Amino acid sequence: MTEIAHRQNAQRSDAEVLAERLPALLPEAQTLGQAEIPKGTVARYIPELAKADPAHLAIVVRTVDGERYEIGDTEVAFTFQSVSKVFALALLLRERGLDIFDSLSCEPSGDAFHSIVRLEEEQGRPRNPYINAGAILVSGALPGDDPTAKINRLQSFLADICDAEPFPLDEAVFRSESATGFRNRALANYMQHFGRIADAKAAAETYFRQCSLSLTARQLARLGLFLASSGVDPISGQQVISPECNRTAVALMATCGLYDEVGQFAISVGLPAKSGVSGAILAVVPGRMTIATYSPALGPKGNSVAGLKVLQFLSDELGLSLFG
Amino acid sequence: MTEIAHRQNAQRSDAEVLAERLPALLPEAQTLGQAEIPKGTVARYIPELAKADPAHLAIVVRTVDGERYEIGDTEVAFTFQSVSKVFALALLLRERGLDIFDSLSCEPSGDAFHSIVRLEEEQGRPRNPYINAGAILVSGALPGDDPTAKINRLQSFLADICDAEPFPLDEAVFRSESATGFRNRALANYMQHFGRIADAKAAAETYFRQCSLSLTARQLARLGLFLASSGVDPISGQQVISPECNRTAVALMATCGLYDEVGQFAISVGLPAKSGVSGAILAVVPGRMTIATYSPALGPKGNSVAGLKVLQFLSDELGLSLFG
Amino acid sequence: MTEIAHRQNAQRSDAEVLAERLPALLPEAQTLGQAEIPKGTVARYIPELAKADPAHLAIVVRTVDGERYEIGDTEVAFTFQSVSKVFALALLLRERGLDIFDSLSCEPSGDAFHSIVRLEEEQGRPRNPYINAGAILVSGALPGDDPTAKINRLQSFLADICDAEPFPLDEAVFRSESATGFRNRALANYMQHFGRIADAKAAAETYFRQCSLSLTARQLARLGLFLASSGVDPISGQQVISPECNRTAVALMATCGLYDEVGQFAISVGLPAKSGVSGAILAVVPGRMTIATYSPALGPKGNSVAGLKVLQFLSDELGLSLFG
Amino acid sequence: MTEIAHRQNAQRSDAEVLAERLPALLPEAQTLGQAEIPKGTVARYIPELAKADPAHLAIVVRTVDGERYEIGDTEVAFTFQSVSKVFALALLLRERGLDIFDSLSCEPSGDAFHSIVRLEEEQGRPRNPYINAGAILVSGALPGDDPTAKINRLQSFLADICDAEPFPLDEAVFRSESATGFRNRALANYMQHFGRIADAKAAAETYFRQCSLSLTARQLARLGLFLASSGVDPISGQQVISPECNRTAVALMATCGLYDEVGQFAISVGLPAKSGVSGAILAVVPGRMTIATYSPALGPKGNSVAGLKVLQFLSDELGLSLFG
Repeated sequence: MTEIAHRQNAQRSDAEVLAERLPALLPEAQTLGQAEIPKGTVARYIPELAKADPAHLAIVVRTVDGERYEIGDTEVAFTFQSVSKVFALALLLRERGLDIFDSLSCEPSGDAFHSIVRLEEEQGRPRNPYINAGAILVSGALPGDDPTAKINRLQSFLADICDAEPFPLDEAVFRSESATGFRNRALANYMQHFGRIADAKAAAETYFRQCSLSLTARQLARLGLFLASSGVDPISGQQVISPECNRTAVALMATCGLYDEVGQFAISVGLPAKSGVSGAILAVVPGRMTIATYSPALGPKGNSVAGLKVLQFLSDELGLSLFG
Repeated sequence: MTEIAHRQNAQRSDAEVLAERLPALLPEAQTLGQAEIPKGTVARYIPELAKADPAHLAIVVRTVDGERYEIGDTEVAFTFQSVSKVFALALLLRERGLDIFDSLSCEPSGDAFHSIVRLEEEQGRPRNPYINAGAILVSGALPGDDPTAKINRLQSFLADICDAEPFPLDEAVFRSESATGFRNRALANYMQHFGRIADAKAAAETYFRQCSLSLTARQLARLGLFLASSGVDPISGQQVISPECNRTAVALMATCGLYDEVGQFAISVGLPAKSGVSGAILAVVPGRMTIATYSPALGPKGNSVAGLKVLQFLSDELGLSLFG
Repeated sequence: MTEIAHRQNAQRSDAEVLAERLPALLPEAQTLGQAEIPKGTVARYIPELAKADPAHLAIVVRTVDGERYEIGDTEVAFTFQSVSKVFALALLLRERGLDIFDSLSCEPSGDAFHSIVRLEEEQGRPRNPYINAGAILVSGALPGDDPTAKINRLQSFLADICDAEPFPLDEAVFRSESATGFRNRALANYMQHFGRIADAKAAAETYFRQCSLSLTARQLARLGLFLASSGVDPISGQQVISPECNRTAVALMATCGLYDEVGQFAISVGLPAKSGVSGAILAVVPGRMTIATYSPALGPKGNSVAGLKVLQFLSDELGLSLFG
Repeated sequence: MTEIAHRQNAQRSDAEVLAERLPALLPEAQTLGQAEIPKGTVARYIPELAKADPAHLAIVVRTVDGERYEIGDTEVAFTFQSVSKVFALALLLRERGLDIFDSLSCEPSGDAFHSIVRLEEEQGRPRNPYINAGAILVSGALPGDDPTAKINRLQSFLADICDAEPFPLDEAVFRSESATGFRNRALANYMQHFGRIADAKAAAETYFRQCSLSLTARQLARLGLFLASSGVDPISGQQVISPECNRTAVALMATCGLYDEVGQFAISVGLPAKSGVSGAILAVVPGRMTIATYSPALGPKGNSVAGLKVLQFLSDELGLSLFG
C-alpha cells in the first residue's frame, strides 16, 4: 500500500475504501493467482481430490458490513477438508466451552499436520485442534451419539450460522477418505490408547464425514463472518459463539492454521487463516471481513499456491496485515 | 472490555482513551501481577540471574504518539536475554535484508527454546530466529569482525534507535552465561558442522554478550516503539528498518515469541511479544503502542508470571487483541 | 565359572557337565530368582495379565541331546505375548523366506517396544520383527485368509514342531488384549497407510490372538529347541526352518529380543533371548540348549526380574555367554 | 559350511581346521572383497580420509593359539577412528571398572553414530560407548590431566598389550578431524551442559587424537586378541582387563559395534565387531580368534563394503556365527 493510499484510507471508512478499491484489485489478484497455479499440484493422496480442476480459482471478500466482492469460480463446490476444523471447534466450544483444552493443547506443533510423533511424546494429547490429531479429537467429542448424529448436528450448526441449506456430504470423497484414511485412524487409535478419546472408530469416521462436506467459496466467506466479528454473525446478528471462544478459534488460526507454513504466512499475509487440501483458504480480518479463496493446486506445504498469492496481494494492497 | 467501553473507545481517539483509562488500569494491573509472583520462580540456570528480586514488577506503556504510562520498578535494570533476539534480528535485517532467511527458517518449532533435536532433522537450519539456535546464528552474522565488534555495533544500533547511552554489558551475567552456556555452544558447533555459521565460538560468545546487555523496562518500551510503527521510530522519525523487515520481525514475535507458550499467549493476549528469562516481556500493538513488563519470577514455560497476567489484563481491558 | 570348572568342562562332554551341575544349580537359581520377585510388578496394562500370581517361578533347561532339567512352576500356563514373535517370524520365514525383509528392517530400534515414532520417520517400515510394529506386520502376513485361519495355521505349526496338542487360546486374555489394544491398532493402521500391510484390522486381531496363546515353561523350552539346533528340532529331527532363516531369527533375538534392555542382557547373560510381558523368557544357547523361565513380576523395562536373575546366574555358572 | 565340513571340524582341533582351510579361503575372500569395492566410496567428511586408496584390502586372522593367517595390504597403515572406541573403553574399564556405566548407558541407539537427538531426550547420557557421544565421554574420562597426557596413556596401554612401539598419531588426519569436528564438539558441549563430562574441549580433542592413531591390519588383529580370550592377551599371558570387563566390551560390539547395520551384521556374520570410517573392521570370535579387515571403500551405513563381504564369507565357510 502506498503512503498516499494509506492516508486516504485513514480519512475514509473502511467500507468506502473497499468499495472503491476491490473492483479493480480482484481482477488483478485473479491474474496473479492464475499465474501461480502451474507451480502447484492438486492433492492426490485422496483419489477423489485428484479430480479437481486445477484451473479453478475463486476469490470472495465478505465484509462485516454485509458487502460481498468476488471473482472467478465462486460457485464451484469443493470439500471442506481441514477448513472444517475451525467450525467443528467452534461448535464444540459453544457446547462445552474452553474446558475442552484439558484434553488438547493450543500450541503450534512445528510438525507436519498428520504427524504422530509428538502425540507419543505428549501422551496422546494433541498439540492443537487444527492438526489432524486434535481435529479428530474434536470431531469425536461433537454432540451426538454416533458419527451420523454428530455430522447432522454440525450440518445444522453451519446452516444456522448462514441461514442456508445444510452443506451436503460428498459421498465419493467420503468413501475415498474412508478407504485411505489409515493414518488418521492410527492417530485416533493412539489417542484412545491414552484415554484421550472414547471411540477411535467413531471419531475417525466423523472426521472423514466432516472433511467431505461440500460448499463453495462464496458460502465459505459468508459462513466465516462471525469469526471476524467477535463471534456474532453480522448478517443475522446472532451470537454464534462467545467472544472469548471466538478469539480462541481465531488466535489458533494465526498460530496453527496453515500447517508448517504458518510462520511464513504470518510474515507475508499477517492474517489468521485456515487452509485445506481441497485448495480452500479462509482468512479473517478481525472487525472487518473474511476472504475466502479456492484453487486446488497446492504447494509443497499443502496450501493453495494461488490462494497464498491472492491473499498476499490483497493484504499488501489493503494494508490488512495485523503485524504492521 | 465492556460493550460501553468499546463504544466509547470508538468515538474517541486512541490517545484520549489511553490517557483516560491507563492511570486507573496500571495500579490494578500491578496488583494482579503481584498476586501472581508467588506462582513463579526466578531463573536459576544462570547463577547470576538467580539473584534477581522476585518482588520486582515494572509496567510501561509507550504509545506511538509519544506518551508514556508506567508503574512499579521501571528503572530497575535487568539483562536483555531473549528479548535481545528481536533487536539483533532487526540489525541483521537492516544490514542484509530478507536474504538471511536462506540460512534459517521462520516457522514455530513446537519445541523448547534450547532444543537441538530439530536442528538435526533439518540439517542445522534453525527453525526461526527467536529460538536459541536461530538467535545464535543471527548473532554470529552481525556486522563486525569479532564478538566485541559485533556487540559494539549492536550497542550503537540500540542507542541510536532511542537516542540513549549504550546499554552496558553486565559483566557478572556475561561471565555466568559464558561459564554455563554449553548447551548454546553445542547448538553453535552443530550449526557450524552443517556450514550454517562460520565460527561457532564467536557466534556463541556474541550471543552471550548480547543477552547480558542491561536495560530497564522504561528503556525497553521506548526501544521497541519502531516495531509498533512500521519500522519508523515515532519519536525521532528515523526509519530503523524497512516496513517489510519490521513486519517480519513482528510477525515472528506473534508465531515464535513466547517459547512453547506462544499459542496460549495468542489466545489470552493476542499480541506479538517477546519474552526473556530475566523476566522481561515486550509486547507490540501495531500502530498504537508497546508494553514492556519486567518481573523475574517465571512460570513453567519460562515466561514472567506477573508479566503474562498484566498483559492479559491490559489486553482485555483495552481490547488490544489482534484476533478480535 | 571358576578356572577349575572351566577346565573340567573342557575335558568332559557338555551333556555330562550339565547332568552333574544342573541338579544343584537349579535350586540355587530358584532361590536367587525368588529373591528378586519383590523388585518387580506384574504387568497391568492388560487387565487379565494383572491376575497372574507373582510368586510363580519356573525354570526349564532343555538340551539338544534331549535332556530336560527343571524346577518350580513349570506346568503353570501363561500367555505367549511377545515370545510368540519369534515363532510367528519362523513360520513366515518358512513360508516366504528372507524376502520378508523387504518390508521390515532388522535393526535394533533403541526405542520402547510400542513406539510409533520411528515408524513415522521410516515410512511405516518397522525396525525389526520383535518390536510390536514389526510383529504386527508379521502376524498380518501369516498364511491364511483371516485372523482365525492365520492363528489356526500358527497353532498347527507350533504343535507340529513339538509333537503336542495345539496351544489353546486364552479367551479372557484375548478379549482383554482386544479391548485395550489401541496402541497396537494405531501401529497397524499406520503401516497400512504406508502400504506396508494390507489389512490393519486383521493384522492387529491376529496379533492379539497370537499373544493370547497359552503354554507352559516346559512347553516353551521344548518348542524352542530348533532355534538352538540350526532350525532342526533335535527330538523329531525335522527341519523346522532353514539354517539361514534360523540364524536370522536367533541373531535378531540377540540384537532386538529384550526391548530396550537388550544391551544390558548381552553383557550380563550373553545369549539370544526373547521376553514377553506375561513374564516368560526364552534363551537360546546355539548348539547346546534352550532355557525357559517364567515369573510374572516385571522390571522397569518389561522383563521378568526373576527370569533375568536366573539366566544371569546360569550363564555365569555354566559359562554360557557367547561373548567370552 | 557344508554338513561334511562341519563334521570334519568337529573331529579335529580348531587349530588344525584353520591351518588347513585358511590358506585356500583367504585368496577367495580377497577376490570376493575386491569385487565389492566398486560398490563403496571412501569417506570424504574428513578431507584427509578421502586420500585413502580404495583398492587396498587387507585380511588378517589371528588365533588365540598364536597363529596368523593374512593376505593383501596388511602393512598399510590407516587411522584408528571408531575402532579405537573399543580400546579406549577397555582402558577406562581397567582404570575405573563398571561404575563408568553410571554416566552412560549400554543399549543400541537405533540412530546414526553421530546423532544428538537421543542425547537431548536422555539428559546428555549417551546410549553406549561406541556411538560418538559415548566415545567422547569415554575419551574425556581417560586417565591424564590433558588431551596429550590422556593420549600418551592410551598409546602406552596399546603398546603394552601387544608389545609394540606406540602407534603414532597421524598429524594430518588429526588436524583434519579437529578442523571439521564441529558435530563432535556439539556432542561434547551438550554432555557438559548436562554435567556428564567435565571439559568438552579436552574431551573432543582427546577423541580426535585417539581417532588419528595409526596402525595396520596386522597390528589390529594382534592388538584385539585379548578380546577373544577373556581379557588375557594369549601371546604375553597378561590380563589386560578383567573377564567381566572384557565381556562387557565384547557384548557391546555385538549390540552396538556396527552403527545402524549391527542387526544385519548379526544375521549375516554373527560376530561381535567394531568398524571405523577409515575402513577397518575388527571381529572377535570368542575363545578362538580375531579377524581384522581393512579396505577404505564404505557402504551407505559407513562400514567397509569389502570388509563386510570378507567377514560374511569367512563366517559362513568356517561356521563362526555365534547364532547357529
